[in-house]
Amino acid sequence: MALEDNFRKVTPYVPGEQPKIPNLIKLNTNENPYPPAPGVRDALLKLAEDPSVLRKYPAPDCEILEEAIADYYGISRDRLFVGVGSDDVLSMAFLTFFNSKKPVLFPDITYSFYDVWAEVYGIPYKQIPLDENFEIRAEDYRMENGGIVIANPNAPTGVAKPKAWMEDFLKEHTDTVVIVDEAYVDFGAESVIDLIDKYENLLVVQTFSKSRSMAGMRIGMAFGSKLLIKYLKDVKFSVNSYTMNTTSLLLGVEAIRDDAYFREKVQAVIATRERVKLQLKSLGFVFRDSKTNFIFASHPAMDASEIMKKLRERGIIVRHFSKPRIDQYLRISIGTDAEMDELIKALAEILHR
Amino acid sequence: MALEDNFRKVTPYVPGEQPKIPNLIKLNTNENPYPPAPGVRDALLKLAEDPSVLRKYPAPDCEILEEAIADYYGISRDRLFVGVGSDDVLSMAFLTFFNSKKPVLFPDITYSFYDVWAEVYGIPYKQIPLDENFEIRAEDYRMENGGIVIANPNAPTGVAKPKAWMEDFLKEHTDTVVIVDEAYVDFGAESVIDLIDKYENLLVVQTFSKSRSMAGMRIGMAFGSKLLIKYLKDVKFSVNSYTMNTTSLLLGVEAIRDDAYFREKVQAVIATRERVKLQLKSLGFVFRDSKTNFIFASHPAMDASEIMKKLRERGIIVRHFSKPRIDQYLRISIGTDAEMDELIKALAEILHR
Repeated sequence: MALEDNFRKVTPYVPGEQPKIPNLIKLNTNENPYPPAPGVRDALLKLAEDPSVLRKYPAPDCEILEEAIADYYGISRDRLFVGVGSDDVLSMAFLTFFNSKKPVLFPDITYSFYDVWAEVYGIPYKQIPLDENFEIRAEDYRMENGGIVIANPNAPTGVAKPKAWMEDFLKEHTDTVVIVDEAYVDFGAESVIDLIDKYENLLVVQTFSKSRSMAGMRIGMAFGSKLLIKYLKDVKFSVNSYTMNTTSLLLGVEAIRDDAYFREKVQAVIATRERVKLQLKSLGFVFRDSKTNFIFASHPAMDASEIMKKLRERGIIVRHFSKPRIDQYLRISIGTDAEMDELIKALAEILHR
Repeated sequence: MALEDNFRKVTPYVPGEQPKIPNLIKLNTNENPYPPAPGVRDALLKLAEDPSVLRKYPAPDCEILEEAIADYYGISRDRLFVGVGSDDVLSMAFLTFFNSKKPVLFPDITYSFYDVWAEVYGIPYKQIPLDENFEIRAEDYRMENGGIVIANPNAPTGVAKPKAWMEDFLKEHTDTVVIVDEAYVDFGAESVIDLIDKYENLLVVQTFSKSRSMAGMRIGMAFGSKLLIKYLKDVKFSVNSYTMNTTSLLLGVEAIRDDAYFREKVQAVIATRERVKLQLKSLGFVFRDSKTNFIFASHPAMDASEIMKKLRERGIIVRHFSKPRIDQYLRISIGTDAEMDELIKALAEILHR
């Protein structure tokens, strides 16, 4: 027997490139172009005054961060779970809630980590095709299932379903856990957080990585009924007691506290996005309306990977997925106004407009 | 069908208490009594100068930290894996390497997370009793297995096996992965890191939490053959692309670089430990010789939980495990000299010596 016969064999998720090239305009991983809230700097300085606190384990219950988040959303801590980015939260949720022999359902075009988690944990799954407009059709989900995962707004399409649609969907699916991945919700879509008390099987996942400019700190959270959160925490404490390090706890508190800064920067991203939508349209791009901090666009006159290549030659990187149905699209993150001006200029050149 | 029928049901690991009571002498979680290396403060100050880097994702390949660790140990990066504390590393290793129907073997008295990981991932396991002196008997492991996990030095016993014994053991077990958990090795035991080239199935796990005073940052690592590390990284990238946040990467580099500081503080802990051993002996405690930053001691004249309770009344906390065979023992972390003086004074009072 070969040593590797007992090894878990997986095809890992490939994250967007984090290149070390200076002066690159980086529009490929949906990072926020603005720095974290000013309090984050203060927290770093305070920690530098006495770094000896780092010799101790962090609070395993993440108390200070959970309290700050619970306070912000007006919920109790027993309805909240925090993890190392929403990836950690989602991974734990897959491990915790999807243990039936029935398939977990999610769209064919969505966050491409869902099938990776299903594979790594041996969870059966079924990818349900979006319609030709990248819309989820509720009727396609009417089947026996081991759970459902919906990203809203969806990624990489940027398409959002209204809350009323989401609630109708939840009413149809009360037997298994429904995860609503709201990584991008703050950029103009409607959250279903306030439905967690009504639907015991609803888990809403959000992140500090996009709207709170904290991708580097890896902070994600889930909101759900006491029942879901209890099981999720039990599994978390069976994997790693201390997932959130001391800096995540301290800096995370500052990022969530500063609501004025948060609103200001989210509005800035939205304003830039709306302006860029018009510019992309006038360049001939087609795309569904985006409620996220990216635009998922295609151009009828030029191959998407060709555009990507030519942008890269000009020091601008965007994301392209070599996957069926979306290989003619580029996912373009919303950067600063200056960055987007450069993008539009480069695209005009590339397309000879 | 009830909603929770599909949920994973586990009995989580219970970490040592992290109480918020001020002025407590905290000898219950094997934290280093000394602060992290001075460079850690500098790294915090530097980050505070420009916290905008936190808006970006960290490098998913953990390049700067992996390079610093690889450089320190004189190995290549393809023999190294880093994670969110050694718990994350061990958890991923269980998930990656233990996929047979045969039981994974580990001692009955050892780090009490091993059986928790086996349970959460559905891995069959068999706990092999230590002998009456808390020693591992190599002959007891001569059976078909799906892998072996040995903590060396063992926890909570503190007992270390010499390298020659470890190599004899490795020679007997080449068909499945052998994990050697060296969380405490820097306090006087012998590492088997340099055997990773000789035994393709050997995975050595270490941590920044104890000897490098960085429990708060959650940094652990594994050393192994290219084969093991490749599979481990594939699974990691199937769970969470960015486990290590930007602060872990930046501060971790500083902690590993400062070898002089590391040696000085490890020697200080060892010196305190050796002195405390003599004092505990003269108070009538019995214990196996410890090569860790804790002493696992029992007193023939007083119940261990009673001693623990009385220490707590005096503001000193130590760890007690209500488990068969070790419920008459206390695991006492090595603190500063002043803290250990207080401990010895309190114990003398409690024992009327």
